[in-house]
Amino acid sequence: MYLRSMELTKVRRTHVLVGALATLVWINVAKDYRDYPVKTNVDHDPCCEFPCENQGVCISLKDKSYICDCTNTEHYGTNCSTPTWIGWVRKGLQPDPATLHAWLTQDLWVWRVVNAVPFLSDYAMKYIYLSRSDLIDSPVRFESDHSYTTLDAYFNETYYARTLPPTPRHCPTPMGVVGPKEYPDVDEVIQKVFLRKTFIPGPFKTNLLFQYYAQHFTHQFFRTNYTKGPQFTKGNGGVDASNIYGLTESHRRHIRLFKDGKLKYREVNGEHFPPLLKDVEGLDMEYPPGLPIPEESKHALGHPFYALLPGLFAYSTIWLREHNRVCDVLKEEHPHWDDERLYHTAKLIITGEIIKITVENYVQHLSQYKVNVKFRPHVVHNTRFQFHNRINVEFDHLYHWHQLVPDGITINDTYYDLMDMAFSVKPIFTHGLDTFIQALNSNRAGKMGPHNHGVVNVPVLKRMLLNSRALRFQGINSYRKRFKMSPFKSFEELTGDQELADVLRGLYGHIDAVEFYVGLFTEHDGPSVMSLTVVNMGGPWSVKGLIANPICSPQYWKPSTFGGEKGFEIVNTASLEKLFCRNMKSKCQNIDFVVPDSSL
Amino acid sequence: MYLRSMELTKVRRTHVLVGALATLVWINVAKDYRDYPVKTNVDHDPCCEFPCENQGVCISLKDKSYICDCTNTEHYGTNCSTPTWIGWVRKGLQPDPATLHAWLTQDLWVWRVVNAVPFLSDYAMKYIYLSRSDLIDSPVRFESDHSYTTLDAYFNETYYARTLPPTPRHCPTPMGVVGPKEYPDVDEVIQKVFLRKTFIPGPFKTNLLFQYYAQHFTHQFFRTNYTKGPQFTKGNGGVDASNIYGLTESHRRHIRLFKDGKLKYREVNGEHFPPLLKDVEGLDMEYPPGLPIPEESKHALGHPFYALLPGLFAYSTIWLREHNRVCDVLKEEHPHWDDERLYHTAKLIITGEIIKITVENYVQHLSQYKVNVKFRPHVVHNTRFQFHNRINVEFDHLYHWHQLVPDGITINDTYYDLMDMAFSVKPIFTHGLDTFIQALNSNRAGKMGPHNHGVVNVPVLKRMLLNSRALRFQGINSYRKRFKMSPFKSFEELTGDQELADVLRGLYGHIDAVEFYVGLFTEHDGPSVMSLTVVNMGGPWSVKGLIANPICSPQYWKPSTFGGEKGFEIVNTASLEKLFCRNMKSKCQNIDFVVPDSSL
Repeated sequence: MYLRSMELTKVRRTHVLVGALATLVWINVAKDYRDYPVKTNVDHDPCCEFPCENQGVCISLKDKSYICDCTNTEHYGTNCSTPTWIGWVRKGLQPDPATLHAWLTQDLWVWRVVNAVPFLSDYAMKYIYLSRSDLIDSPVRFESDHSYTTLDAYFNETYYARTLPPTPRHCPTPMGVVGPKEYPDVDEVIQKVFLRKTFIPGPFKTNLLFQYYAQHFTHQFFRTNYTKGPQFTKGNGGVDASNIYGLTESHRRHIRLFKDGKLKYREVNGEHFPPLLKDVEGLDMEYPPGLPIPEESKHALGHPFYALLPGLFAYSTIWLREHNRVCDVLKEEHPHWDDERLYHTAKLIITGEIIKITVENYVQHLSQYKVNVKFRPHVVHNTRFQFHNRINVEFDHLYHWHQLVPDGITINDTYYDLMDMAFSVKPIFTHGLDTFIQALNSNRAGKMGPHNHGVVNVPVLKRMLLNSRALRFQGINSYRKRFKMSPFKSFEELTGDQELADVLRGLYGHIDAVEFYVGLFTEHDGPSVMSLTVVNMGGPWSVKGLIANPICSPQYWKPSTFGGEKGFEIVNTASLEKLFCRNMKSKCQNIDFVVPDSSL
Repeated sequence: MYLRSMELTKVRRTHVLVGALATLVWINVAKDYRDYPVKTNVDHDPCCEFPCENQGVCISLKDKSYICDCTNTEHYGTNCSTPTWIGWVRKGLQPDPATLHAWLTQDLWVWRVVNAVPFLSDYAMKYIYLSRSDLIDSPVRFESDHSYTTLDAYFNETYYARTLPPTPRHCPTPMGVVGPKEYPDVDEVIQKVFLRKTFIPGPFKTNLLFQYYAQHFTHQFFRTNYTKGPQFTKGNGGVDASNIYGLTESHRRHIRLFKDGKLKYREVNGEHFPPLLKDVEGLDMEYPPGLPIPEESKHALGHPFYALLPGLFAYSTIWLREHNRVCDVLKEEHPHWDDERLYHTAKLIITGEIIKITVENYVQHLSQYKVNVKFRPHVVHNTRFQFHNRINVEFDHLYHWHQLVPDGITINDTYYDLMDMAFSVKPIFTHGLDTFIQALNSNRAGKMGPHNHGVVNVPVLKRMLLNSRALRFQGINSYRKRFKMSPFKSFEELTGDQELADVLRGLYGHIDAVEFYVGLFTEHDGPSVMSLTVVNMGGPWSVKGLIANPICSPQYWKPSTFGGEKGFEIVNTASLEKLFCRNMKSKCQNIDFVVPDSSL
């Protein structure tokens, strides 16, 4: 309804495309995904109150009492709330997350020293990698179909993992015992909290190169399997480069050239682009039916939907060129290697580049840390760090960042409405790839916060919110505690804004009842691109995923894995700027995740 | 041919059954599993000589030279053969595997002290768990389709892992540069090395309860996918209890009772047995077509072929009863828990019992260590131990232990030929389960060594040998080095038997060319049930697989995971004897992995 009143003209103009978008994203209706009977012979379960602190595990007993299992929590007592001696010391040594965050984002002299002295920098990285990954269950315990530990959570890797188990179905309210018995109307939540009135640009000059990096990078591992349900994934546990090479062996073979290790490409005016779909027989790309895209404009990429948005297509093209460039470097070193070995070794190098750039350019900008975030996997060799990763469904939800998306983009003085850019890569061929990339570089992304969700992306937001309800996500404060942050005490503390606090109070009644995603993106401004909570929850999932990649492990992290010293060097010196500048035709300028000052 | 001449009568008598067996095991013909062209533009590759020592990685360069990457090997030099200072110290502190093995299997006073003092025992276990698992790549680097590190080895979990990569296809001989250009005739190898003339019983009084434990236990994770090829598996990475509950969710649901967490059962004379297949609609068990088994005698079990051998059926029945018994215990503690929670929690307890019994009863007997092998997962918490596992295809091959299988079994004074026991569980219902189990307990298994392979199992052996060739396994000495054992210098050192040494010399020419499996089971006698090499290679794969199970990790290993203290106690006090004695109707006697003295 709010759609009609607010954006009628725009919606009419693009109704074909929105319909197609809806086909893509609106496949599932939230439902009870357990298709066998759930017998709840519980009239009162004390564990619905989540009484155990510090990750103690609640077990209900026959006389309607409960017990908290405090094993390995470094706490004891009825609710695991009293620290053991060692737990008390450790807590005393660990700074409060908010304080630490404030330090890290301030330009202190200590960071300049750390940045300048390699062994201090390594030590800092070791601390960051370990302290963050310690917050992530590895191996995972929970999935979305059970509110307790199951073996299936681990062995059935088609499940997304869960960091906190679902609220049990027999509890009085969706959040356990607090808040309303029924969730507030999702459309009302969207309208009152998320919907954009006017575009609010991000305060850190974040550009669209960042926005599309986020999207291009994350969809290699966020691959919800809607056929099975929102608790399932089709993807692997992390950075597998499947967004470039394809998720299945069949897909991968379709786009390989089978010569010199390279990927198939099409030459246009002396530049290499992904091949046309019609030239790759038998590959299925996710072009929605009924779209006005002629067959001869469809492309074959590693990810089935990356040809639908020009920003993703641009990244795909750059990575394709980089892969083929790396193959040339390798062939020069090893002229006797066959196509197969060049391909697989280049893929290892590309994976290393992805992680290097993600850590040192992307996470650095995202966090706004003043200490340099470095990619130094060897620092966690021979530590407790676990080199295996699974994707948590909460991480997927947290990563819904459509607030970044502006209403339109200016390319060479031509303004394109967002919907003019969807489902077509025409602007790239109209203006040229280099011009398009410079436009991504100089157009600002939106601010991550309330009231900044463009109407076009509302279906995605709505689906995600409904899924979090179907999957019975615990509230934002449960997650704050899980990640060792103190829970918000009031709506005002959460939002720092009386008006928004009142809105949330009207919707949820109790601060502990605020939904996960709603809490994440109504938090008051902080010193990072995202809120403190997003950084302190996304950080652990992200660091764990990046550093747990097999290439970071002791047996992989050596020159021979990457074809020798030269390949290892490519990984160890990779940067966003090099990635683009080496693969653009013209002279590249100011490639970064922020808009250059000249464009502001 | 040798089959005909040697065992004509027996083969004729059972030709229907052997035909059916062949259907089961002889599905694939060894072939080149790479279905895309392999371009080998290599006329000389120095890496075919495997020049790098101490797990250094060989990389060939353009001028036909090579370089060894010694990173993380604690060695340096052209061939990574010179230890660094720390490597030298560590080598000095680590006893030679053969010496250590000799100590561990001797009844020294030091073991009595270790066994008696818990903290020393824990320390010994920590050393064993870590030193063994350090030998296993985790994350894995290799699969069978490439002779170098690939990302696919890790991310494509349908691959079995490889501990050593395949010999490159362009090398002069199957073993690199040594040995014959073509493998010796497989039938000749089988006839001269493996085929049993007369049954040789095992020297450690090992019984058939042990043999069937091995088979029942290992087929939860050895699940070669012959449709795809011998390098692929349908299974998970370890002890997932899928041999009891089913590998797929569909299978699992078919055999669940959906009441009180239990599995379906059939009552016969007051005893519980697995249900009949006709009572479990839609479940597919692997009964070979054409077998004379009436529909009303077919059973529905967790593993699709466990109803084909009465020994496996007996174990399946006992575990079914144990699961349902545990459900009763849990329901008593938590009467309000629903079927789903009882089922999943019982499954966690059963998994714990499996690991406990495997470590403390099974591995203890297998190794013949005089130090008590204990299940103490907490000792590797907060160490470098990696709680994730993959099955190595070499482990599957090593675990072909058909030498254990006797020619027949005596039950209550009735002698059954082996083939009379295949494809039918009739003996169990004729004699009663308890009598059958006592027979398994009092019949001796065969010796693990040359010339002790019953003719009936030859097809399995032949398929495995051909697969190891198709997968281009490196030779036994490469594996000895990989597991830090010194390579055999001569055929005589390997076999300790001149006649067998001469046979092997005739087949392979060079000791370094002896095939993996052939080397494993032609080794001279040692102080364990298996040869030193089998124990020192199987041990690491086994320990890693058992202790890397998720239930052993810090977040799982606590009472609440197992439903509380009572469930945890079941895991921590499990034993082979309890497993049987709690689930047999009559008074159980002498349950163990050795034949009781009264039966000898």
